[in-house]
Amino acid sequence: MASFSRLVRFLAKDGRTYYGDAILPRGVSDISKAKQARIVRGDIFGKHDVTTDVADIRLLLAPLALEDVRTVRCLGLNYELHAKESKMPIPRFPVLFYKPATSLAGPTDPIPVHPLAQEGSGLDYECELVAVIGKKCADVPESKALEHVLGYAIGNDVSHRDWQIARGGGQWSLGKGFDGWAPYGPGIVSSNLIKDPQTLKISTRLNGKVVQQSNTADMIFSVKKTIAFLSQGHTLLPGDLIFTGTPSGVGMGRTPQLWLKDGDVVEVELEQVGKCTNKVEFQSKQGPRL
Amino acid sequence: MASFSRLVRFLAKDGRTYYGDAILPRGVSDISKAKQARIVRGDIFGKHDVTTDVADIRLLLAPLALEDVRTVRCLGLNYELHAKESKMPIPRFPVLFYKPATSLAGPTDPIPVHPLAQEGSGLDYECELVAVIGKKCADVPESKALEHVLGYAIGNDVSHRDWQIARGGGQWSLGKGFDGWAPYGPGIVSSNLIKDPQTLKISTRLNGKVVQQSNTADMIFSVKKTIAFLSQGHTLLPGDLIFTGTPSGVGMGRTPQLWLKDGDVVEVELEQVGKCTNKVEFQSKQGPRL
Repeated sequence: MASFSRLVRFLAKDGRTYYGDAILPRGVSDISKAKQARIVRGDIFGKHDVTTDVADIRLLLAPLALEDVRTVRCLGLNYELHAKESKMPIPRFPVLFYKPATSLAGPTDPIPVHPLAQEGSGLDYECELVAVIGKKCADVPESKALEHVLGYAIGNDVSHRDWQIARGGGQWSLGKGFDGWAPYGPGIVSSNLIKDPQTLKISTRLNGKVVQQSNTADMIFSVKKTIAFLSQGHTLLPGDLIFTGTPSGVGMGRTPQLWLKDGDVVEVELEQVGKCTNKVEFQSKQGPRL
Repeated sequence: MASFSRLVRFLAKDGRTYYGDAILPRGVSDISKAKQARIVRGDIFGKHDVTTDVADIRLLLAPLALEDVRTVRCLGLNYELHAKESKMPIPRFPVLFYKPATSLAGPTDPIPVHPLAQEGSGLDYECELVAVIGKKCADVPESKALEHVLGYAIGNDVSHRDWQIARGGGQWSLGKGFDGWAPYGPGIVSSNLIKDPQTLKISTRLNGKVVQQSNTADMIFSVKKTIAFLSQGHTLLPGDLIFTGTPSGVGMGRTPQLWLKDGDVVEVELEQVGKCTNKVEFQSKQGPRL
């Protein structure tokens, strides 16, 4: 539906922020390597133009502006081995939770860790394929579900296991909703380019070492099944994001458990899309960050 | 902070939609009885004017336009007797979950029940005080929390217990997020008028019979404690709503259990604010509703 191939939002060398269609050297598919983009003008979900104006990228930002994002839905336990390592049953239906739009961040933003999330243990990473809804829909059959997807990104569903589980009263919301705890990007690859989102290698590196490595083929509920399921009685809107769950290898599932520390660098990567590289930054002071 | 007393959004007799400041006859505090309003122009969270233009109200709508809403946060188990009737422990921290903005609806809208939510049993009502955030904030101390509240409304956190609990995999999201499952209103009473939100009678009537009756004084976590807690590491934005939990008397907690049926009329009411009256409408067909 979109006329762009790899949507990015970026700070340009002229000091302004644009939407753009990333320009990649031949043979390169990692959007984080883009140095230039063709500026996109208009409504990215509707009428827009990929112009011939080329801008130099100084910094890639979260692919959607906060005002263009609606609801962020996430699936839990959507890879069998991850459900097992979490000691949870294989879900019968997709397990839904939400992150607030304020948790979204860009592909190289630091992951701020508020003093509250430094208490207890359990700061963890989760690489996930992110589907971006481009067209309003409800009660979509599986066969038409992917027609409503603008494109795909890679995201990190940063989680604090203690707040997510014990202190959260069983609801995962609080331990996953902190500001900046959903870095994603580095851009959105159009569903015109990725026709089948169930064939992509997905991985996480922690300080350079591979800790998660899987393929979206291993999802329990595919993207099209997920959209068909979630849209039942729920209208999905342009700018809705769906984080589709993480494979095994999270810190919680390891022996001994492996928690993120101040200064750690987490890199999540999706084939045909690229990488987000985010540094964990423990915060000493409180206060507004957005 | 706001210059209006009772913010409403309404379809006027001229066929247009406006924000307005409801005009109530002397001695009446239920906004649902307003026949006229002074039109409000500008940014309801920022610079705006309550004009001297008076419009006739044909229909009160959800108090905030969808594009003016950000995140809808909700508390579970925030009244002791409700935690007991739910056979859940009294929470140590506020239990947070989210509803999507698409679940919001107006004070007299029908509650659409999708075929999926007609399966199993457990369609239930929950009257709740709704706090509307008017100013961006994070890490707010309790003593300053209420300064960030635009005002208060009454809402119904409509829930399907089977999808909320057993089929939802323990996450409450799916059983509470259907389109139209958060009617609220009838308007937003400014925090200039309601200085203390912990003194208000709150109730639900089902087909005219009182089924919930309490006072916001009975909340476990007051509005100011809730805002102070939730804003830790989470930036709250103008247009965020907080549903602050429901008192005892829900259908799930009764013997025998009492589930909403097609055609039932649910009325939720909050002192100094007014009533929302919504009819349960089982849907036979699927498809977009927004």
